[in-house]
Amino acid sequence: MKRNFMDADFLLTNETAKRLFHKYASKMPIIDYHCHINPAEIAQDRRYENIAQPWLLGDHYKWRQIRTSGAPEREITGDADDRVKFQNFAKMLDQAIGNPLYHWTHLELQRYFDYYGVLSEKTAQEVWDHCNQKLADPSMSVRGIIRKSNVKLICTTDDPVDDLRYHKQLAEDPTWEVKVLPAWRPDKAVNIDQATFVPYIAQLSQVSGVAISDFASLKQALEKRLDFFGEMGCVASDHGLDSAFYCPASEEEVDAILKAALAGKEITPSDALKYKTEILLFFARQYAKRGWVMQLHYGAVRNTNRRMFEKLGPDTGFDCMGSTLDAVAITRFLNELEQTGELPKTILYSLNPGDNEMLGTVLGCFQGEGIRNKIQQGSAWWFNDTKQGMEQQLTSLANLSLLGGFVGMLTDSRSFLSYTRHEYFRRILCNLIGTWVENGEFPDDDDLLRPLVENISYYNTKNFFGFEL
Amino acid sequence: MKRNFMDADFLLTNETAKRLFHKYASKMPIIDYHCHINPAEIAQDRRYENIAQPWLLGDHYKWRQIRTSGAPEREITGDADDRVKFQNFAKMLDQAIGNPLYHWTHLELQRYFDYYGVLSEKTAQEVWDHCNQKLADPSMSVRGIIRKSNVKLICTTDDPVDDLRYHKQLAEDPTWEVKVLPAWRPDKAVNIDQATFVPYIAQLSQVSGVAISDFASLKQALEKRLDFFGEMGCVASDHGLDSAFYCPASEEEVDAILKAALAGKEITPSDALKYKTEILLFFARQYAKRGWVMQLHYGAVRNTNRRMFEKLGPDTGFDCMGSTLDAVAITRFLNELEQTGELPKTILYSLNPGDNEMLGTVLGCFQGEGIRNKIQQGSAWWFNDTKQGMEQQLTSLANLSLLGGFVGMLTDSRSFLSYTRHEYFRRILCNLIGTWVENGEFPDDDDLLRPLVENISYYNTKNFFGFEL
Amino acid sequence: MKRNFMDADFLLTNETAKRLFHKYASKMPIIDYHCHINPAEIAQDRRYENIAQPWLLGDHYKWRQIRTSGAPEREITGDADDRVKFQNFAKMLDQAIGNPLYHWTHLELQRYFDYYGVLSEKTAQEVWDHCNQKLADPSMSVRGIIRKSNVKLICTTDDPVDDLRYHKQLAEDPTWEVKVLPAWRPDKAVNIDQATFVPYIAQLSQVSGVAISDFASLKQALEKRLDFFGEMGCVASDHGLDSAFYCPASEEEVDAILKAALAGKEITPSDALKYKTEILLFFARQYAKRGWVMQLHYGAVRNTNRRMFEKLGPDTGFDCMGSTLDAVAITRFLNELEQTGELPKTILYSLNPGDNEMLGTVLGCFQGEGIRNKIQQGSAWWFNDTKQGMEQQLTSLANLSLLGGFVGMLTDSRSFLSYTRHEYFRRILCNLIGTWVENGEFPDDDDLLRPLVENISYYNTKNFFGFEL
Repeated sequence: MKRNFMDADFLLTNETAKRLFHKYASKMPIIDYHCHINPAEIAQDRRYENIAQPWLLGDHYKWRQIRTSGAPEREITGDADDRVKFQNFAKMLDQAIGNPLYHWTHLELQRYFDYYGVLSEKTAQEVWDHCNQKLADPSMSVRGIIRKSNVKLICTTDDPVDDLRYHKQLAEDPTWEVKVLPAWRPDKAVNIDQATFVPYIAQLSQVSGVAISDFASLKQALEKRLDFFGEMGCVASDHGLDSAFYCPASEEEVDAILKAALAGKEITPSDALKYKTEILLFFARQYAKRGWVMQLHYGAVRNTNRRMFEKLGPDTGFDCMGSTLDAVAITRFLNELEQTGELPKTILYSLNPGDNEMLGTVLGCFQGEGIRNKIQQGSAWWFNDTKQGMEQQLTSLANLSLLGGFVGMLTDSRSFLSYTRHEYFRRILCNLIGTWVENGEFPDDDDLLRPLVENISYYNTKNFFGFEL
Repeated sequence: MKRNFMDADFLLTNETAKRLFHKYASKMPIIDYHCHINPAEIAQDRRYENIAQPWLLGDHYKWRQIRTSGAPEREITGDADDRVKFQNFAKMLDQAIGNPLYHWTHLELQRYFDYYGVLSEKTAQEVWDHCNQKLADPSMSVRGIIRKSNVKLICTTDDPVDDLRYHKQLAEDPTWEVKVLPAWRPDKAVNIDQATFVPYIAQLSQVSGVAISDFASLKQALEKRLDFFGEMGCVASDHGLDSAFYCPASEEEVDAILKAALAGKEITPSDALKYKTEILLFFARQYAKRGWVMQLHYGAVRNTNRRMFEKLGPDTGFDCMGSTLDAVAITRFLNELEQTGELPKTILYSLNPGDNEMLGTVLGCFQGEGIRNKIQQGSAWWFNDTKQGMEQQLTSLANLSLLGGFVGMLTDSRSFLSYTRHEYFRRILCNLIGTWVENGEFPDDDDLLRPLVENISYYNTKNFFGFEL
Repeated sequence: MKRNFMDADFLLTNETAKRLFHKYASKMPIIDYHCHINPAEIAQDRRYENIAQPWLLGDHYKWRQIRTSGAPEREITGDADDRVKFQNFAKMLDQAIGNPLYHWTHLELQRYFDYYGVLSEKTAQEVWDHCNQKLADPSMSVRGIIRKSNVKLICTTDDPVDDLRYHKQLAEDPTWEVKVLPAWRPDKAVNIDQATFVPYIAQLSQVSGVAISDFASLKQALEKRLDFFGEMGCVASDHGLDSAFYCPASEEEVDAILKAALAGKEITPSDALKYKTEILLFFARQYAKRGWVMQLHYGAVRNTNRRMFEKLGPDTGFDCMGSTLDAVAITRFLNELEQTGELPKTILYSLNPGDNEMLGTVLGCFQGEGIRNKIQQGSAWWFNDTKQGMEQQLTSLANLSLLGGFVGMLTDSRSFLSYTRHEYFRRILCNLIGTWVENGEFPDDDDLLRPLVENISYYNTKNFFGFEL
């Protein structure tokens, strides 16, 4: 039966799927436990002048596709007029059949702007006018959007040296009820092989008040910041790692490597991996002790295009998937922590979907008593955040672990209009489950189905992280 | 159209699929050409006191999932009561939507226990009582279960030093009609880098009556055991290999490496690979000479969790998939044998489903005159033994080789209640073929379809291994 | 609803798919921008005596499958009668359910021979007689077949030393209207580590009139041939590469490596990669300067079976997929060219479908202003040229890049009867798009859909390569 374009039953191909989504999943609030939004914009309750601002001024996912359509960089990230940028975006969409941007864009138009038409090269002016008029309404401020999205809690992504002033401001604001918690992302303290390392350590030294001269004092400085983040409500950490590695080293070795780096010497790749292994083990043990969740994001190849990196900097749309991961390295790392009972709750992500099944089997080797799905595979990440990518991750996870304990979706986004990705995920989840049920592969019993859907949409995240809501 | 939970047409989504399964596939007997059951239990016609015994006392596949649900180890593999263990299992199932365990469990409840309800946390007591009552009936002994399953032949998995006394006993038992043949699994003779190697060689020396001091005498001892296994009806071998490798070495080099190992010296990884390459080539040539089938199981990362390994030993649910395999190494190994006409009939398995397509193309490079599908890809193995995993393996194999010559399913199981996995496979096979037919992709002609289904279910295995039935 | 075997709506499972295919896609002409046909056979307007000649005398894809069925080599590639070879082929087909050969064979029987039955062991004689009678008609010459297929342009695959005499002859033939252009495939100039290298360089030296003694003179000789190919209408290049690598070296280093090779010395693997990297960079810069398209075919393991290689030579059905590619090496290679604005229009292919997603994300890092989809992923290649392989490539590409700009299908074939593979591709494309539309995932609007389908079928290729038609 032919269905209408993105109507109320979008992606719900059977009656059970519709029931599960409309009756249960759609009613659950949102916990966005990993994203890249700027907390200052919530604190300041930012407003937008036109639809290009929230959509096109920071979203490198869109930039990539507009570049692919052949538009000039000046009209993507440069000084061209916002209206011109929007036109390029609309024109690109006409080529984007099958791309998640197509769905995200129209979900956002429907949910936030009450626009139910199609954005295309031809309708761009109409959509521009329509959205800008809506944005003029005070209810379309950042806080208004978050409230409209039924968001209960947001974890931002924060550097250990950050003073978290906006988190503090928001926590103390009696007019603001949504929790905005920091998440610990200490990549700059890990990446000893990057030019940012030495100045970063100086900054960390200053912020922590600990003179950093060796591994012990570095750890001491980091512990101070971990304490501070903890006081600010942080329970989630996050690491971006190119590849999987496990190269243990003695404290003396790490000391020597760190001192060499601080002295401005070149660090060999194998020394870098030793340092990174040991500092990751340190972090993991801290998370275990504090009851935090460790998120490991493996496998991005970043800044591949040097010309554009020099022009625009990082996170501008020039990253790609790496090759699949080394299974042995991952298990050795987890084993080292498990040996001493210091393995924290962990969420593993790989950017290459070819790792879905391998990761799915790693989980089962390191689970923990008294915690449901202590070791998780993260939701289909970044480039995989597509209908197909999510179906594959959910199916692989169901095959190899327990889908019922999955913590589910996060936006990973830089935009306040992305909360509809939770809806997108929940539709796909309910359709998958509904299809299994209607195919006779699972009982048609809401006593079983309702908790599955509600848990994966909301409660599992709440309980796994231990959020108080 | 909505379908009932796991009814007679389970997984059969169209009329052709139903016809092929009910008319042809379901009527074929079972040859279980690779499994891990204990032949002593057939010889002694073991009985069970409760359903936890056959289901939960040895099946690490179930243990992993119960651990994932957060249950304490004592209530999984420890000294807790069987009823408690069963409750944890039932409770876990409520989270296991999409997991093959869900289907296997209910297929077993239906076929062996005539129970057509749903096992869940709530119904656990009812199912416990129901099954235990059934198990009290003498027809539910191990032999009864095998007969009820229409099994004609079983290949166990046996060490070269095994005396095969139970195989002998069964072969001589006039009251027992199902063939139980040994299969040759000489991993301990291959794994020169493991602590088990030196004592194992001593044991092999004693059993074979050949003093093993070098590679020649080792091969001589193994040939004696190969002869013995052959006399006992063995026609199948099997190797568990972490990764694919091909590092040829001279007889002198191998001799030196072996002597060093026997003298208790540490073996370098590269020397270990040389030894392993040469002993695998020796085995393969022996299989070719004897007309045996060589099964290579590639790509498991075993015993990843040292803490649990020390507590429970191997094969307790702490293995995972390795990364994808080295295609060049596999082809060089096969080429070396092919050069001299000593490549035996071979079945290749990889634990990582990302190897399906690569392996599918390797097959076609080494086929042999007069033998249908001489080089085969094995059925979706271990973690891949799921609806999706089997569909992917079957589709890949059909795309890249000749599905019609496929030897099909095996249980790979430690439980006597697993023969329903053949039914599961046949349903998936018939549904895939039926779907192709109903989609106009293959003629709707039983003169073509019936032999395809019957061959993949039964006759291909019989002919490929040369079983006399 | 059950559908007939390969009828007019073959692979079109919904009304939108049928409309898009029959109304738009099927009416587009064919540009076959990469294939391995012999231009001499067009120039000479070759005729066939029997159906085994076009089907079985050069197609190693079919040979592999017939070998898998167990037929003796003499009756596949040897001196057995054509009728015997055909019988083996027909017999094999009965096992080939799910294999693309099954569909290709019957599409060719329908479109070129008006035969709508099923080729099987039983009907082989009937089909043999039917086809041979048809082939006796002059309209079934090579030129007749090409015209009947609505082909507008063919790019062959040619060595830089080729004199392109048949291309010239065809271009000057007033009775022949289909463009037959050469494509530049300089593998022998790249493969410094193969025995063919030194004699090849001698030949290149002679043909170009440039004495080749160092890297500079080699490049000079190649530029002369590039000029010549350009004069003959060449706008496409093509490289076959085992794996992805990026090992830059100085001109001096390359010079030394090249001189050593020319002096007959053994070249180390790392030196070979340095030479290959630099000559590939040279070629790429030439393509960029000339506006040519660079095609990189990564990841075949060739000539795996030495016994058969010695008997039959290369390209006889003994190649397989390699492991997945090194993402970092690919991006570094492209980055080096991008840095200086010398990255040509590029089409990336990997033989391992596990690279689909990784490649899909590489594309977006190197796009170019003013060119739609400047960096493309090639259509599902070789072993992946199946219904499933094409669906996966199209879906991955749609998820990660802009499907609307895709250059689409090529035959990659050695047979003049393969143009129906374009039909096969277009049916799969239209079905995928139609399914998305009917599922409400894209608007049901022919103003958007018609250009998508027509562009991917025809116009994108015309515009990307800049063919004048």
